[in-house]
Amino acid sequence: WYGRLPTKSELETLSKGLRTNRSLPADVVKAMKQMPKEALPMEVLRTTVSMLSMYDADAEDNVREANIRKAIRLTAQIPTIVAYWDLIRNNKEVVAPKEDNSLAANFLYMLSGGKEPNEVSVKSLDIALILHADHELNASTFAARVAAATLTDMHSAIVAGICALKGPLHGGANQEVIKMLLEMGTLDNVEAHLDKMFERHEKVMGFGHRVYKTEDPRASHLRKMSQELGKRAGDTKWFDMSYKIEQIVKADKGLNPNVDFYSASVYYMLGIPNDLYTPIFAISRMSGWAAHVLEQYANNRLIRPLAEYIGEM
Amino acid sequence: WYGRLPTKSELETLSKGLRTNRSLPADVVKAMKQMPKEALPMEVLRTTVSMLSMYDADAEDNVREANIRKAIRLTAQIPTIVAYWDLIRNNKEVVAPKEDNSLAANFLYMLSGGKEPNEVSVKSLDIALILHADHELNASTFAARVAAATLTDMHSAIVAGICALKGPLHGGANQEVIKMLLEMGTLDNVEAHLDKMFERHEKVMGFGHRVYKTEDPRASHLRKMSQELGKRAGDTKWFDMSYKIEQIVKADKGLNPNVDFYSASVYYMLGIPNDLYTPIFAISRMSGWAAHVLEQYANNRLIRPLAEYIGEM
Repeated sequence: WYGRLPTKSELETLSKGLRTNRSLPADVVKAMKQMPKEALPMEVLRTTVSMLSMYDADAEDNVREANIRKAIRLTAQIPTIVAYWDLIRNNKEVVAPKEDNSLAANFLYMLSGGKEPNEVSVKSLDIALILHADHELNASTFAARVAAATLTDMHSAIVAGICALKGPLHGGANQEVIKMLLEMGTLDNVEAHLDKMFERHEKVMGFGHRVYKTEDPRASHLRKMSQELGKRAGDTKWFDMSYKIEQIVKADKGLNPNVDFYSASVYYMLGIPNDLYTPIFAISRMSGWAAHVLEQYANNRLIRPLAEYIGEM
Repeated sequence: WYGRLPTKSELETLSKGLRTNRSLPADVVKAMKQMPKEALPMEVLRTTVSMLSMYDADAEDNVREANIRKAIRLTAQIPTIVAYWDLIRNNKEVVAPKEDNSLAANFLYMLSGGKEPNEVSVKSLDIALILHADHELNASTFAARVAAATLTDMHSAIVAGICALKGPLHGGANQEVIKMLLEMGTLDNVEAHLDKMFERHEKVMGFGHRVYKTEDPRASHLRKMSQELGKRAGDTKWFDMSYKIEQIVKADKGLNPNVDFYSASVYYMLGIPNDLYTPIFAISRMSGWAAHVLEQYANNRLIRPLAEYIGEM
């Protein structure tokens, strides 16, 4: 966001901004309560972030200072949207965010309906959020930059990012991984299940990456975290299954796990509902989207490729 | 959408679909009525299209037939959103769409609060909508394709397109043009106003195009329509001003008017509120976005460029 490390006082100001902007306007919470209970968390996130601009005094101000303020607010508000939706759809009362804890701790606190999360959960989620924060010109970041390059506003650029993140070939992949793990159910079923997938030429989600041809360095951390969470819970089943899948896909397809693969078992062991995995990706990636959007605005050129006609003349 | 012209019966089915899907779910209209009255039409459009997926039984079905159904519904619904918002923010009753008229006629009918539009207005808007329907890999279409390439759903891809269209370097340009015309106010002021803009190195909106180095063929039609509408109204002031601006910008900057430039005076003479010009662009471009999204799904590859690091090593 700033292109350099902050001074101590700048860090305090930023940190305070991220803590004190977690609330949502009452009208936005009201609108969320009227949404159909079966709406997907990603649909709700996309719609609610879009709605937030209507209540943001800086919405149409495209100078850098205003965009920084909006980036802070959105980074603070997105976790609240995700936690609130899970409470609302389950007919539970929403819990006001706290201001004295980390983003990860506060998200877990709100999501649980007001219980203080344990240290291991907070640390695990915090690490997962750091690992997902930014990753060069991934598809959602690129969508956000394509939008920003028309000099559209920050909210629109972030919504464009959410729209792209939702897809199963991008942020939606971590939800596909947990679906597969749950379908397999036990370690014994892994091999036969994968064989069937290979026969049907199905893509095993969570493997391969456009950039990494060796191991995704984020996967190394998440693999370790998945194993540790299993050990602490006294049940390494989800890690063991994941690890076996990794071995087989590596041997048979030559593909390495990416950031999505071990995220799935980590979030599962943290007790997070499956369809919140992609929204959690958004909670984290918001910071990276904002960085790219600010960079795009600072040195803008319309992103508008030309098509090449290859049909009949 | 189909890659070929329809048979007579296919055309009838499509046409019927576009006429009978114009209504919005009651809960969506209710949500719109609760939005802040000063919300921008593009914010409302972006939010409401995003919300529509929650009420669409096909939302998560990504097979071609379901995507065609969604494309038909969204093409039919977007004009209703735009017209309804203008009524709602002015505290007027919304008017149910008709099913026996063209998309252009029905939009003007709803926008006026239930008056039958005259033939000239309908024809002018119809031509403007045709001219804006598709234009290769423009920024909003590209944003929609980047989103679609993650295999995200149709609604998400269209919302990404709306996010990019909103920017003043893209669909927002027609609103900038009418702002400039209104600031100038009279034909006599055109030259001095432009001189000042040139001195301040300000971009004159509605000129130049990434693809066209000669005249944008759409501008030729819109210029003619602007002149005709002026003649019929007995006041060619807005056309005359536009034409003078065109002559000066051509001579001084070597730039030609694009699709946005004469759209502004056309919409103004049709009595359309200024901040609906970009939403009207969206009403039309929806059909082009859908075509590109269907094409992307049919032959997909993730759109994920690589960045090149050019900073300090």
